[in-house]
Amino acid sequence: MYQRKTAIKNDCSIEKALNVVSGKWKPAILSELLKTNLRLKDIQIGLPEASKRALTQQLKEMIKDGLIEKEDFNQFPKKTEYSITSLGAQLSTVFAALSKFGDNL
Amino acid sequence: MYQRKTAIKNDCSIEKALNVVSGKWKPAILSELLKTNLRLKDIQIGLPEASKRALTQQLKEMIKDGLIEKEDFNQFPKKTEYSITSLGAQLSTVFAALSKFGDNL
Repeated sequence: MYQRKTAIKNDCSIEKALNVVSGKWKPAILSELLKTNLRLKDIQIGLPEASKRALTQQLKEMIKDGLIEKEDFNQFPKKTEYSITSLGAQLSTVFAALSKFGDNL
Repeated sequence: MYQRKTAIKNDCSIEKALNVVSGKWKPAILSELLKTNLRLKDIQIGLPEASKRALTQQLKEMIKDGLIEKEDFNQFPKKTEYSITSLGAQLSTVFAALSKFGDNL
């Protein structure tokens, strides 16, 4: 009779990927940034239920994870935009797969 | 100047998909069940750090979500196996995308 003798290899890559995209507003923000650059104000208008504090926290985490970047434009009035990085852009395949799967739930 | 006027459409499918696969041991269990049917004992041996209670809880949730199913074989000694459903099998694309993305993190 078959009996497992070795540990199930926890696919660290899957866990790591899930960790960086799992945040209350992260999928929504990332999906939008995959289409266009956004200012915080645009994100706030787009996600009115989210507090500014929560959004800036999630944006900060995604910058740290290398998924997005923040650019300050040297102009008046001050303008700051968030954009997707090349690493973050690779999430389009992940989101397409998740979205297709989620459609069946 | 561009200014967002409408709410960001929260892609419910992505959220739903993330919700059903995000559980401490779920990706590991699902990855294995995508390959072969398993008894609880096999899963326990494979994930020695997980408590039996945590594993059965996560298995129960995945059955409820329709990702896996549990089959009792009418034999002695009693045998119960977990297997992936056709819905759960669609996760192979999702996991492949997550794994490929996670490799770059």
